[in-house]
Amino acid sequence: MNMLELIEKKRDGAILSKDEIQFFVDGVTHQTLPDYQISAFLMAVLFKGMNDQETTDFTLSMAHSGKICDLSDIPGVKVDKHSTGGVGDKVTPILLPIISSFGVPCVKLSGRGLGFTGGTIDKFESIQGFSTVVAPDSFKQHIEKCGMLLGGQTADLAPADKYLYAMRDVTGTVPSIPLIASSIMSKKIAGGADAIVLDVTCGNGAFMKDEESARELARRMIAIGKLAGKPVSVVMSSMQQPLGSMVGNVLEMLEVVDILRGEGPKDVLEVVLTMAAEMLRFTPVGKDSDVDTLKKACLEKISCGEAYEKFGDLILSQGGVLLSDGSPMFVERPYEVMTVYADRDGYVSKCNALDVGEASCLMGAGRMKKEDTIDMGAGVKLHKKIGDSVRRGDELYTLFVGSHADISEDRIDEALNKMEQAYEISSSQVLPQPEILDVIS
Amino acid sequence: MNMLELIEKKRDGAILSKDEIQFFVDGVTHQTLPDYQISAFLMAVLFKGMNDQETTDFTLSMAHSGKICDLSDIPGVKVDKHSTGGVGDKVTPILLPIISSFGVPCVKLSGRGLGFTGGTIDKFESIQGFSTVVAPDSFKQHIEKCGMLLGGQTADLAPADKYLYAMRDVTGTVPSIPLIASSIMSKKIAGGADAIVLDVTCGNGAFMKDEESARELARRMIAIGKLAGKPVSVVMSSMQQPLGSMVGNVLEMLEVVDILRGEGPKDVLEVVLTMAAEMLRFTPVGKDSDVDTLKKACLEKISCGEAYEKFGDLILSQGGVLLSDGSPMFVERPYEVMTVYADRDGYVSKCNALDVGEASCLMGAGRMKKEDTIDMGAGVKLHKKIGDSVRRGDELYTLFVGSHADISEDRIDEALNKMEQAYEISSSQVLPQPEILDVIS
Repeated sequence: MNMLELIEKKRDGAILSKDEIQFFVDGVTHQTLPDYQISAFLMAVLFKGMNDQETTDFTLSMAHSGKICDLSDIPGVKVDKHSTGGVGDKVTPILLPIISSFGVPCVKLSGRGLGFTGGTIDKFESIQGFSTVVAPDSFKQHIEKCGMLLGGQTADLAPADKYLYAMRDVTGTVPSIPLIASSIMSKKIAGGADAIVLDVTCGNGAFMKDEESARELARRMIAIGKLAGKPVSVVMSSMQQPLGSMVGNVLEMLEVVDILRGEGPKDVLEVVLTMAAEMLRFTPVGKDSDVDTLKKACLEKISCGEAYEKFGDLILSQGGVLLSDGSPMFVERPYEVMTVYADRDGYVSKCNALDVGEASCLMGAGRMKKEDTIDMGAGVKLHKKIGDSVRRGDELYTLFVGSHADISEDRIDEALNKMEQAYEISSSQVLPQPEILDVIS
Repeated sequence: MNMLELIEKKRDGAILSKDEIQFFVDGVTHQTLPDYQISAFLMAVLFKGMNDQETTDFTLSMAHSGKICDLSDIPGVKVDKHSTGGVGDKVTPILLPIISSFGVPCVKLSGRGLGFTGGTIDKFESIQGFSTVVAPDSFKQHIEKCGMLLGGQTADLAPADKYLYAMRDVTGTVPSIPLIASSIMSKKIAGGADAIVLDVTCGNGAFMKDEESARELARRMIAIGKLAGKPVSVVMSSMQQPLGSMVGNVLEMLEVVDILRGEGPKDVLEVVLTMAAEMLRFTPVGKDSDVDTLKKACLEKISCGEAYEKFGDLILSQGGVLLSDGSPMFVERPYEVMTVYADRDGYVSKCNALDVGEASCLMGAGRMKKEDTIDMGAGVKLHKKIGDSVRRGDELYTLFVGSHADISEDRIDEALNKMEQAYEISSSQVLPQPEILDVIS
């Protein structure tokens, strides 16, 4: 077997065998293949695709390119979740305490964010003292202590995927459904999950811009799950506008606290409850219940205060600091830079997630490059979302920076321009948009 | 401008500007682009193509990536020729002396062969003492001495093409018409030609397997010529069977001598005369004549002995040794290993060029890898070609090696198997195939 033959086969639209895919992934893992053959192959895959079996073989090869996380000594069904990402996505920090309050063990391995806003790891690190460095051999200990853990992905988790991901980023081979699906699923499988619930976001602020490609990605990941023996459920959610009102690291965690206290925006809650129900359905807790019953039970965990208490447990378990009122202590405090007001009466008809994400990033909440440091206090608060009625002079949005920020006037102007572009106010009534587009499994 | 954007644009089917193409070729030439981006781009081009203007811009950028050969101090119209290659292709050593005998200056820069049989350079080097190392500043001197020269391509001739050619070879990006067309044309333009005549071969033993892709390649190179201001004419010839009877370096040069002495196979002569007429049409000698008149005039140059004399001049001019009868002295002598005879009566219906080429290569006449040395004496003689009638016991083909050859029985067996596969004898009559498929300009 040689790599040139594999490239030519895929270029000509042939189906690759399991051995051929293994040969490729081995070559990536052990760095025995030259980069130029790897990238040529990826581009051929982008054009010619892979069928479900090839994609599954590829996923499993990548999952096994490093250590598979062994969670077998933790009792119960371990359900992992993943989101294809979006602006204002703070689902994980709410979801984990809810699931955990049912006695279901939660091991969540997350990544850092690149672009837009921080990733889940970054958001948790906005809490003073919180550490996401958890060695796999202490997972059990964490689960025993508080029922859940939030860890960073280690270098030996699917290293072939890590390498290929970086390669795709610089060779124009990111937007390939089989490559995206296998990248996500390889990490989830390497993470040791028994079942997987995926939030596939869709819209201008998401990776998948249109519903058709989001559905195809969902279908792919479900197919991989079937062939790999890991049940998968997909929640398709809208990312036409940001999720919730807060975008930025501390800002989003403040919204997390609100929601866990029974307050906060309904759209976030809806996604959280839908995801939670899907996760519970894979466990003994929920396997005989219908979705509505499970969602109600989850809501109950919030209103009785149990979920918020669990949130505190998680923070303490990983070294984070709580204030006397039980809320987390943050490393930064968001300071208001400027609030913009509506210049007319009407209804919000557009609140472009991509623009808001970029504005937030410009304020300092995200990374443009891997080396960039995040201003944990920076971000944007949206006072109005699509469908809301506004009156001239109402608060529309507020820009924030952290107390240590050193931001130029130019950056703020750029962010303001982005925000101005993001919003549109229509004189005719606009209906609020559904947050959940579909649930598929 | 950055390379990722260029890859993405081409991936999405956009047309690249002249500046963008220049940016890419500059990056290749100065090695400022990583190989993985180069190969990803080439694969995107393979799938999405380039239009005539892009291909021309690419051709000219590559031609100018090194020194352009300045032939302006050589008087007259300099017409270059190129063949896309085939098995038994010995057109150049016959064509050059014919053209030169009309007083038309001939500067021909050639490459070495990889695979099948040797290239033109290798064939000339089978003559004792012949050197193809000719410095560009002594071109004029050579032309003054004997009216022509046969040189090897120097490292600074279209270096970007050289790099990309090697890259395409290992990344599955060879079979792209715009990449093939621009590679050929960039070298011809860098070689300083005023006009170009191309032999586009077509068939199992050629790079273009079918007539449709051969026509598309021809059309492309004519289009590049038009946009680049270099008139191009294309002779499309068949490579379903080898050209002539001899395949191998010394063997082919023996056939060259035969033809220049007015003997030898008609198919080679037909291609030579067609190419010669096209070349002369670009010069004052032939611009007012029709093709048939020019072909007759070329034939006359052979029958009067002038072309053969010119061939001797070329050999002497570049250090080659002539024997007392005026024929070249070779570095090796072909020794017959085995002759195979027809096992039935009938007509030759197949004489597969690819198989014959591979058999010849197995005997030692070609290179499998760049480092391989060629056995100049090795090769195959075809006693029968498609359409010939055969009787049981007639000689079909003969395998040769050079006197210094150290060839294993296994290699000979492999070559015999290839030859057996190459030939088919049919009981019903088979018509000889036309050698020239078309002439386009």
